[in-house]
Amino acid sequence: MQDAHAWSGRFSEPVSELVKKYTASVDFDKRMAAFDIQGSLAHAAMLTRAGVLSEADLSAIEAGMAEILQDIQEGRFEWSVDLEDVHMNVEKRLTDKIGDAGKRLHTGRSRNDQVATDIRLYLRDAIDHIVTLIAALQTSLLDLAEQHADTVMPGFTHLQVAQPVTFGHHMLAYVEMLGRDGERMVDCRKRVNRLPLGAAALAGTTFPVDRFYTAQLLGFDDVCHNSLDAVSDRDFAIEFTAAASLVMVHLSRLSEELILWMSPRVGFIDIADRFCTGSSIMPQKKNPDVPELVRGKSGRVTGHLLALLMLMKSQPLAYNKDNQEDKEPLFDTVDTLIDTLRIYADMMRGVTVKPEAMRAAVLQGFATATDLADYLVKKGVPFRDSHEVVARAVRHAEVQGVDIADLSLDVLRQFSALIDDDVYAVLTPEGSLAQRNHIGGTAPAQVRAQIARHRARLQG
Amino acid sequence: MQDAHAWSGRFSEPVSELVKKYTASVDFDKRMAAFDIQGSLAHAAMLTRAGVLSEADLSAIEAGMAEILQDIQEGRFEWSVDLEDVHMNVEKRLTDKIGDAGKRLHTGRSRNDQVATDIRLYLRDAIDHIVTLIAALQTSLLDLAEQHADTVMPGFTHLQVAQPVTFGHHMLAYVEMLGRDGERMVDCRKRVNRLPLGAAALAGTTFPVDRFYTAQLLGFDDVCHNSLDAVSDRDFAIEFTAAASLVMVHLSRLSEELILWMSPRVGFIDIADRFCTGSSIMPQKKNPDVPELVRGKSGRVTGHLLALLMLMKSQPLAYNKDNQEDKEPLFDTVDTLIDTLRIYADMMRGVTVKPEAMRAAVLQGFATATDLADYLVKKGVPFRDSHEVVARAVRHAEVQGVDIADLSLDVLRQFSALIDDDVYAVLTPEGSLAQRNHIGGTAPAQVRAQIARHRARLQG
Amino acid sequence: MQDAHAWSGRFSEPVSELVKKYTASVDFDKRMAAFDIQGSLAHAAMLTRAGVLSEADLSAIEAGMAEILQDIQEGRFEWSVDLEDVHMNVEKRLTDKIGDAGKRLHTGRSRNDQVATDIRLYLRDAIDHIVTLIAALQTSLLDLAEQHADTVMPGFTHLQVAQPVTFGHHMLAYVEMLGRDGERMVDCRKRVNRLPLGAAALAGTTFPVDRFYTAQLLGFDDVCHNSLDAVSDRDFAIEFTAAASLVMVHLSRLSEELILWMSPRVGFIDIADRFCTGSSIMPQKKNPDVPELVRGKSGRVTGHLLALLMLMKSQPLAYNKDNQEDKEPLFDTVDTLIDTLRIYADMMRGVTVKPEAMRAAVLQGFATATDLADYLVKKGVPFRDSHEVVARAVRHAEVQGVDIADLSLDVLRQFSALIDDDVYAVLTPEGSLAQRNHIGGTAPAQVRAQIARHRARLQG
Amino acid sequence: MQDAHAWSGRFSEPVSELVKKYTASVDFDKRMAAFDIQGSLAHAAMLTRAGVLSEADLSAIEAGMAEILQDIQEGRFEWSVDLEDVHMNVEKRLTDKIGDAGKRLHTGRSRNDQVATDIRLYLRDAIDHIVTLIAALQTSLLDLAEQHADTVMPGFTHLQVAQPVTFGHHMLAYVEMLGRDGERMVDCRKRVNRLPLGAAALAGTTFPVDRFYTAQLLGFDDVCHNSLDAVSDRDFAIEFTAAASLVMVHLSRLSEELILWMSPRVGFIDIADRFCTGSSIMPQKKNPDVPELVRGKSGRVTGHLLALLMLMKSQPLAYNKDNQEDKEPLFDTVDTLIDTLRIYADMMRGVTVKPEAMRAAVLQGFATATDLADYLVKKGVPFRDSHEVVARAVRHAEVQGVDIADLSLDVLRQFSALIDDDVYAVLTPEGSLAQRNHIGGTAPAQVRAQIARHRARLQG
Repeated sequence: MQDAHAWSGRFSEPVSELVKKYTASVDFDKRMAAFDIQGSLAHAAMLTRAGVLSEADLSAIEAGMAEILQDIQEGRFEWSVDLEDVHMNVEKRLTDKIGDAGKRLHTGRSRNDQVATDIRLYLRDAIDHIVTLIAALQTSLLDLAEQHADTVMPGFTHLQVAQPVTFGHHMLAYVEMLGRDGERMVDCRKRVNRLPLGAAALAGTTFPVDRFYTAQLLGFDDVCHNSLDAVSDRDFAIEFTAAASLVMVHLSRLSEELILWMSPRVGFIDIADRFCTGSSIMPQKKNPDVPELVRGKSGRVTGHLLALLMLMKSQPLAYNKDNQEDKEPLFDTVDTLIDTLRIYADMMRGVTVKPEAMRAAVLQGFATATDLADYLVKKGVPFRDSHEVVARAVRHAEVQGVDIADLSLDVLRQFSALIDDDVYAVLTPEGSLAQRNHIGGTAPAQVRAQIARHRARLQG
Repeated sequence: MQDAHAWSGRFSEPVSELVKKYTASVDFDKRMAAFDIQGSLAHAAMLTRAGVLSEADLSAIEAGMAEILQDIQEGRFEWSVDLEDVHMNVEKRLTDKIGDAGKRLHTGRSRNDQVATDIRLYLRDAIDHIVTLIAALQTSLLDLAEQHADTVMPGFTHLQVAQPVTFGHHMLAYVEMLGRDGERMVDCRKRVNRLPLGAAALAGTTFPVDRFYTAQLLGFDDVCHNSLDAVSDRDFAIEFTAAASLVMVHLSRLSEELILWMSPRVGFIDIADRFCTGSSIMPQKKNPDVPELVRGKSGRVTGHLLALLMLMKSQPLAYNKDNQEDKEPLFDTVDTLIDTLRIYADMMRGVTVKPEAMRAAVLQGFATATDLADYLVKKGVPFRDSHEVVARAVRHAEVQGVDIADLSLDVLRQFSALIDDDVYAVLTPEGSLAQRNHIGGTAPAQVRAQIARHRARLQG
Repeated sequence: MQDAHAWSGRFSEPVSELVKKYTASVDFDKRMAAFDIQGSLAHAAMLTRAGVLSEADLSAIEAGMAEILQDIQEGRFEWSVDLEDVHMNVEKRLTDKIGDAGKRLHTGRSRNDQVATDIRLYLRDAIDHIVTLIAALQTSLLDLAEQHADTVMPGFTHLQVAQPVTFGHHMLAYVEMLGRDGERMVDCRKRVNRLPLGAAALAGTTFPVDRFYTAQLLGFDDVCHNSLDAVSDRDFAIEFTAAASLVMVHLSRLSEELILWMSPRVGFIDIADRFCTGSSIMPQKKNPDVPELVRGKSGRVTGHLLALLMLMKSQPLAYNKDNQEDKEPLFDTVDTLIDTLRIYADMMRGVTVKPEAMRAAVLQGFATATDLADYLVKKGVPFRDSHEVVARAVRHAEVQGVDIADLSLDVLRQFSALIDDDVYAVLTPEGSLAQRNHIGGTAPAQVRAQIARHRARLQG
Repeated sequence: MQDAHAWSGRFSEPVSELVKKYTASVDFDKRMAAFDIQGSLAHAAMLTRAGVLSEADLSAIEAGMAEILQDIQEGRFEWSVDLEDVHMNVEKRLTDKIGDAGKRLHTGRSRNDQVATDIRLYLRDAIDHIVTLIAALQTSLLDLAEQHADTVMPGFTHLQVAQPVTFGHHMLAYVEMLGRDGERMVDCRKRVNRLPLGAAALAGTTFPVDRFYTAQLLGFDDVCHNSLDAVSDRDFAIEFTAAASLVMVHLSRLSEELILWMSPRVGFIDIADRFCTGSSIMPQKKNPDVPELVRGKSGRVTGHLLALLMLMKSQPLAYNKDNQEDKEPLFDTVDTLIDTLRIYADMMRGVTVKPEAMRAAVLQGFATATDLADYLVKKGVPFRDSHEVVARAVRHAEVQGVDIADLSLDVLRQFSALIDDDVYAVLTPEGSLAQRNHIGGTAPAQVRAQIARHRARLQG
């Protein structure tokens, strides 16, 4: 099979089978075939415009590529490991179909700039999909938030009851995180969307290429302005994987909460059966498998990020074969992120909230102690002194086994004579919520305002 | 020392010494003191405008803080581990100085939103510094590139000689990488520059805060729109650390090249003695310590990135003490990046290029074989056939132990009858360079054009 | 300060101040001073025995080193950044004290094998300390397990109630994990405890060294059998950091559980006040800071592991300056691990278990459903059929809002006619426990047997 | 397909298709089928001996499993995603074949202990294979070392010429590293080789299991002594992946060197064509693809290590679905390591050494300067003074553009009057080598002794 290779003339012995398998990438890079063809067509069109290829060559290439694309899409294309990668597989097939025009296609380019272009086209497409899926998940969370804009739940810090919040407000925290995740994807896209083609192997080409024309045909915003850099860096893919890791870490946090909230002692929510599985031995079990897997997959994607950073570390310019190892982590990151976002948007619609359990939990943790402290501050007590007063009241209530709202006015006055009958209004969960009525606060009115803001943004 | 703590009223026993040491952060978070004071002053000004503090309180706070800041800057401030962190140290000192007004400062905020604000102020400042240092390093590289816009060197792929490039062109590849690094810093800054203050512990506050006013005083572009998110996420710090890892990985690549180039068998450059060290045993040694350390430090910063991602993984909302562990990795990342960029900009001015060694290397690797192939294409041979013809010529030359430019016309014609006398013009390194005359190509004219483009951008 | 350096004769300009600071290691490697001196004394003794140094030289070196060690221990030693590292600081001081004998000490060695020896002595000592601390934490857990060998709690999978276990049994799971952690430390120690000294810079030395004698003096089990490997690899440190990461990950799991268990809705335990802190704003809060920090620090140590792996990746032999970056991650890993183990052993003695809350939780999740399935199997029903029968019974009980133990015999028989009165004995938590009476099972008798086994091992 | 599931009785709606695909593991865990069957057969044999299963059941199970195994091995087995995983696929097929006996097989176990057993059997087998492959690569390196026990090459530190070594000595450094890698695998195997079966879901089982008997049948050294730990920890897999990362990092170093050495300016070696590939555009290229990929794959495996550590971080006991994510990183680590070791052992036999280039490089870097310093020490000069003398001589020679061996005796005496005619014997590379004649030194006799030692160990 020696002559299968594009570069065999110089070699005195064929590549060993073990090496062929170890070095070939076609098994995984074939997923970029449509982008490879898209890039080749733009390259050919540019070469024709520049007079390097004839119109006849271009027509033949376009016709041949159309057939090949259809073969691939319909599963008829036979991929050959002997041909190493997606590029040589497609080019060889093209030459088999159309002869010399096929052999001319590779004029003025190299696999180095070709693969860099393919990855960028692939990743740009993936980012656009991901941005849409992030928005869909945000919408799913906004719907849930809207249903529960008034639903009281304990806000936790250190998993201790801190202050009352609404479940809607809690969901909005994730809408914010995902909003920044989306911003990062959009920022990353700017750096992805630049054309490497024309860099050829590493130094540019001797043919009169018009790189801006190719960029325009492919929808790139700009060209890479240095040929060595164009073929050798993958920082855009690493940046994407870092952004993807943050999405996964954000979802690992929501997953952790869903798992906790569904644990029977907490009992804040239920997740619809269709997102859960059971046990092969314990007949009573219903397990939140999806959030658990998402939590686990945050490690998977972060692992890919590390793999890529370590891969790139201390590589000399320009292209080295190490870079072939960029694809599997990148592809798996994209797949994992897309699957996770899709399933999450769906699953959040299957979450049932149990407001009574949440309200009971609020009453279990002195959640309005801060409100009492603020109450005293408003009566003139410096905050630090007020904090100390309330700490003593809490300690008293705890010994009694009651909430501070259950202490009589007489008892409360033992801690501060400034306390009056109006204190009880601020000691209810609803009173506490209502007072936090500023931008970003948990008052139901603010929650609704934020939902409206997000919806406007998502529709804009 | 129980009453040293801001929260001690509820507790029945003091914190153990071991715990105090394990949980205190003042040893490292004191570096944020100036930002902590800046944030407190803005908070106090906003509270005063809102009628929560009196003008007298504000004046006392401003005067007290001015003294404290001076004490800190002049090394007189005594930090106490019993006071846990920078916030309590500063507040306690303020109260010692000004009494009740100091106790009122913490009204409407919590350490949770306070520390989130401090980190953002700190990191915004660091990013601005880093952006400047990146530009300075780019300028240093541009100066070197300009001196060597015509200096021929071998462009490598797989560390094999590929095609001639210029040393200036090679330096420009790093200018491009650093350009994207700078873009990432600027993009990250947008997400850093949002105000958490007003989120209080996690739910907002009952005081009539004007968060946009505080944001304006502190130069923030926006406020965080959800209080739970504001106090609990550190994605902006992780994004920064990811961007910093990419800077370090880029510099690890340049470091690798400097080390290779200074190795005697390669001998492309020398690094000034002031950036090198010697050996305690081998008197002849001169070692490129700085690039070696930079290469190693790429692992250090990447390790911090992974520490932060793992730290954040599956934390339930809102604030947990885990987040205290965000600071040391972040601070060390900032320090490492700043030191590395500074020393690198300086060191690149101490690089001496050895053009003869570079040129000799170009002639050692059939670097213009592609030019011969392109030559044949221009005479009508399809690229794939031309590639095969040249491969055979290279094999012949290799057996003879000469470059293809050294083969006689008669010999060259044995491989293709289309070859004529004009071939020798494209087989010189200079001929090869000159032909790659398009945007991003290595032709000296293009290198100069890129240098001009970058200089204009840096001055803009 | 040029002549401060051990290697300055060859250089034409002094090292820049920035470079000096960037490349010096004395700020962090001075912690190895005692080991550096220990290694030097053994080296000198060996050289004397080999006739390279005189007895007088040895006596002078021993006397000088004794003074230096005392100066260091008493904080009188002045460390100089100009002298780069701990080795040159100590050697220079020695030469100042004793003259030419000090200049002879470095005969037959290099800083490369010297620092490799120092790290190994340091790490061996740290490992021995850690092994002791792991055993102490195991003892602390065993004490707690013994108190609660019979205390029923829900065993969870997927945070859903699965089957009853005892709290003692649960604690023993961590004793097992820590047992393997200890094994790994001991295994790692074998590879740490080999002598690099004698490798000199990288090739060995021309002096008649007796490496086995030096190894014997220093308590090493063997010598490194290849000089290039001896000075260039740090795999033993990476192996240690990987083992340390596993300890931290194990403790992150226990931390997660302690935090969950202390959350008011769960309420299984309380942690003594001296291990908790409060809130600057919420007077009622008591936060499990220590386990939260431990959870966060698992990222810190893992980050160091990855820093070291990335540091070592693709370094050519033999020593490169990159390796100086091994120390800070290693030292911080040792410190973090030692502090964490100490505080954890102490904290576990401050855990108060709340058996009623645990028992209530067991009754909330159909925890004995598997026991019913097993009961039917023992009556001849194939397990898969039995599992299905019980699943239906659970569903019925869930709709009724009762436990299966609360269903009447008549109702139970609707699901299987094989069920008899004796079923209720297996449906209690205690009945369920008692039946799992085999090695590794949760029956109290087995828990006690395991405690005895561990205690015997720890005392052995 | 609802009733396909082992746990469906409790559920009111089927699992969604998206969830089914997201949560199923059969696509990757089917590779453990043979181990799953092996474990089931041992479990059934134990249950039969304990009287839980009948002999007839056992015979049916054995016969059914034999058929299933054959179906799998011959590619006839149809895997179903609806059946989730390898365990349920095999069990369902068994029940289809043999009826009720198949339904009884799952008595006294759960998928939790079953999968933990499968992974251990799989990994034990992989480790045994890897240990063999490490030895094979060591043998390949020893053969090369033996051929070049006398071949002089420059020993580098900081990629600067340091001292002469032999190529055989250099190869032995990697034999040492791989030796420790093998030790780590063997140590890890101890912790892998313990039986989880009998832990059932998490608490043990109510059936009279004889876990030691099962362990004996499966060749396990011990049983896991705590059921919660048995089903929930994967530290053995993480330990393995850490050990695998070290192997890959070691090979990344050798790869880096091979790539450097094959670069034309260095020219120390050639790698046989069958391990290299060419360029699609540059006809002259011959690229060391295999070592480049290995270098890149060190990131891949380290990424898996991080993924597993992060996966396990802060998981509460006992089993959570997160753990399903352990398999793909583990399997890919095993595959990558096995392929890499195999191809490396083969490739090292295809390395051609070029002794002249190596010798020329030795003469280019003052490699025997240390020998001159040692020479003076032996004449009574303290090492530090001698080092300084030689540094000045080197500087003089460098200015003259000659080696110190080329300086006349008169010139040398300007630096020290102690230098005599006999100095030239120590200034040749061979003289330098010969003097480093101690254990671990680079003298050819020592290199041969080490080769013999390793060969004896490998055959032992």
